[in-house]
Amino acid sequence: MSGLAFDLGTTDGAARLGRLKTAHGSVDTPVFMPVGTAASVKAMTSEAVAETGARMILANTYHLMLRPGAERVAALGGLHRFMNWPGPILTDSGGYQVWSLAELRTITEEGVAFRSHVDGRRHMLTPESCMEIQRLLDSTVTMVLDECTDYPVKAEEAARSMRLSLRWAERCREAFVARPGYGLFGIVQGGMYDDLRAESAEGLKAIGFDGYAIGGLSVGEGWPTTSKVLEATVPHLPADRPRYLMGVGKPEDIVGAVARGVDLFDCVLPTRSGRTGQAFTRRGPLNLRNARHAEDPRPMDVDCGCPACRSYSRAYLHHLVRAKEILASMLLTWHNLHYYQELMVGIRSAIREGRFAAFAEAFAAEQARGDIEPV
Amino acid sequence: MSGLAFDLGTTDGAARLGRLKTAHGSVDTPVFMPVGTAASVKAMTSEAVAETGARMILANTYHLMLRPGAERVAALGGLHRFMNWPGPILTDSGGYQVWSLAELRTITEEGVAFRSHVDGRRHMLTPESCMEIQRLLDSTVTMVLDECTDYPVKAEEAARSMRLSLRWAERCREAFVARPGYGLFGIVQGGMYDDLRAESAEGLKAIGFDGYAIGGLSVGEGWPTTSKVLEATVPHLPADRPRYLMGVGKPEDIVGAVARGVDLFDCVLPTRSGRTGQAFTRRGPLNLRNARHAEDPRPMDVDCGCPACRSYSRAYLHHLVRAKEILASMLLTWHNLHYYQELMVGIRSAIREGRFAAFAEAFAAEQARGDIEPV
Repeated sequence: MSGLAFDLGTTDGAARLGRLKTAHGSVDTPVFMPVGTAASVKAMTSEAVAETGARMILANTYHLMLRPGAERVAALGGLHRFMNWPGPILTDSGGYQVWSLAELRTITEEGVAFRSHVDGRRHMLTPESCMEIQRLLDSTVTMVLDECTDYPVKAEEAARSMRLSLRWAERCREAFVARPGYGLFGIVQGGMYDDLRAESAEGLKAIGFDGYAIGGLSVGEGWPTTSKVLEATVPHLPADRPRYLMGVGKPEDIVGAVARGVDLFDCVLPTRSGRTGQAFTRRGPLNLRNARHAEDPRPMDVDCGCPACRSYSRAYLHHLVRAKEILASMLLTWHNLHYYQELMVGIRSAIREGRFAAFAEAFAAEQARGDIEPV
Repeated sequence: MSGLAFDLGTTDGAARLGRLKTAHGSVDTPVFMPVGTAASVKAMTSEAVAETGARMILANTYHLMLRPGAERVAALGGLHRFMNWPGPILTDSGGYQVWSLAELRTITEEGVAFRSHVDGRRHMLTPESCMEIQRLLDSTVTMVLDECTDYPVKAEEAARSMRLSLRWAERCREAFVARPGYGLFGIVQGGMYDDLRAESAEGLKAIGFDGYAIGGLSVGEGWPTTSKVLEATVPHLPADRPRYLMGVGKPEDIVGAVARGVDLFDCVLPTRSGRTGQAFTRRGPLNLRNARHAEDPRPMDVDCGCPACRSYSRAYLHHLVRAKEILASMLLTWHNLHYYQELMVGIRSAIREGRFAAFAEAFAAEQARGDIEPV
C-alpha cells in the first residue's frame, strides 16, 4: 500500500531517527520543513533555502489552487519545476486555510464551499478534488482534507468535526492515486480531548496512510496543551510510519515534540519572524528593531555560518529593519531558517549518539541564558 | 592635487575606455553604479550585487545622515564595512534629496536648512558639513553640495542657482580632506541652457576636481534635451578626468551618453523597476505583470546567466509579481542589474575594438525587435 519508504533508525527514549525515501530524494528525520505558501519560501530563492540545509519544504494547496491554479502548475511541469525545488514537497490540504482565510464557508458532508480571498470567486473543495489538486501540483506528500474547528471547542463539536474528517480521510484514501515515492498522510483531529484524539488516530490507522499528522494544534493552545495532546495521540500511531506535527513551532516546542516521538515539522515562525525583525539564536530570540542593537558591531551569533552572521553586524541589521529595507527580511529569514536547520542537525546527532535528554537540557539552559552580555 | 588616478585608454569617437584607481580597488569605465540609497542595494545582498558584475555603487548622503547617521557609520568602521561592500562607493551630496524629499527647505548662501522626512528633525547642510559627513561615511568619491532647481527653470533662476552651486563647490574643494585613492567630483549645473552649462563647467575646471558630474538631468527632460546638454557640456570638461552623468538612465540613454564621452552612470531604474515587475532585456523591456506571461515556460532571456533566467520561467516570475512575493523583487532586481552590467561589458568591448558605432546601432535594432515571437 505504501508509496513512501520510511526507515526507522536509532531511537533514544521516544525520540527517533528516520529516513523518508521519496520520488524527490531522501530526507533524514526529525526534519523541519520551511513554508513556501505561494510556491515561494518568502524572501528566499530556492537555492538559498537549500543552502540553509533544508531538504523538504511545505507549500499551501489553498493558495496555489487560487493562484496560479493547479492546472497551470501542472501544465508548467509541476510544483518542483515551477518553483525550482527538486526536493520533496509536502502540500497541506487547504482545509486550514479555507477555515482561516476564505470567506462565506459552507461545510457539508460533500466538502467545503467558499469564496476566494484573492478574487472573491466561488470554489468547492471535496476530498476528491483535494486529491486531484495535489496530484496536479505533483506533491510528494499529499495531505487529506480535514475540517478545522475554533479553539477552544466543546467536546460535542470536536467529536462531530473529527468524525467528518475521518469520513473525508477515507474518501481521500480512495481517491488518491498511489505512485512510487509519493505518499498520503492522514491528519489526527479531536481538539484537546484525549479520547477523541485516540479515536481519530485509531480510525486513521485502520484506513492506513503513509504517514500521520497531528493537526488542530498551533492555534494558540500553548505548549502544555500541545504536549498533552501529543502524549495522548502518539501511542495510537503506528511506530513504523512518520509522524508530522503540523504548524509547530518555536525551537523549544520542536525539541519537546521530538522527545515525544514526532518526526516532521513545519512552521511559518522562522520566515514570518524574519520579516518583522525577529531572530532566533542559541541564546534565545533577538529583536533587531530594539535600539540596543543600533551601535553593536557584533554579528547576531558569532558561531553561526549564515550570510547574515558571516558578513553583517547587528547595527547594520537594526538599520535595515528600521529603514524597512527588503534586505532585512532576506537576511533575517536566511538566518532563522539556518538556525532551525542547525537545530535539527543537533537533534539528529543527539539521538544518534543516545544523548537526546542531555541535549534538550543544554538547549533549554542556553536559550534561558539570554544575550545581554557580549558573546 | 588629484587623489584619484584615472587612466584613459582607447577612445572610439567620443566614447572612451578608462580605469579609475581608488583606495577601494580599480574600476573599468564606462561603468554603471547600482544605487544603494540607505546602505543597501534594495532586495540584494552585497555579495549578489558583486555577482552581477558591479564594481562600484552609489549611496545617498541625505538618507544616511538622517538614518543611521554619519557618526554612527564612522564608529562602525565606515560605509564599506557597514554594508559589506569593499569596493568603491560614490556618495551623492544630499542636495538632490533635500530638494526632492525634505520638508521646509530654506536655502541661503550658507547652505540649506530642512526638516528630515524620517522624523521631522531640523538639519543644516553646508558645503563644509557635507564634506565632513561624506568623510565620516568614508566615501571613495565625494560629491560637492549643489542646489537643484525645478524643471523647467527660467534662465535667470538657472544662472543664479548655478552660480551659488559654483561658490559652494569652491567651499567644498577647500573643506575636502584629500587622501590617496579618494576623490571629490564637481557638478555641472545650468539647467537646459548651453551658455550656463559652459560657464559652470569652466568654473569648476578652474577650481579643479578629481572628476566632473553633469547634474540637473534625469528630471523628466527627455533624451533629446539630455543629449543636447551633454554636447554643450562635455567639450568644456578636461579630457583626462572622469565624467559622470548623474541619475541616467535607460539602457539606450547610457549608450547615447557613452557616445558623447561619459564615463560613469548611476540610476535607480534597474532596481526600482525590478520591484514593480519590469525587466530589461536585449529585446527591450518586459512587464512580468502582464497576463501574456502567465503560462510561458521560457526564461526572460535564454542567453542571460542571472539566477532569474537560469532557474525560473516567465510564468513563475509572473506568479510571484501577482502574489506580491518578495522573491519577485529579488529575482527581477538581480536580472536588471545583471543586464545593466552586461550592457557595460558590451560597451567596453565595443570601444576597445573600435566598433562602438556599430554596437550602438545593433543595440538599438535588437531593442526595437521586441519580444513577441518565441526567442
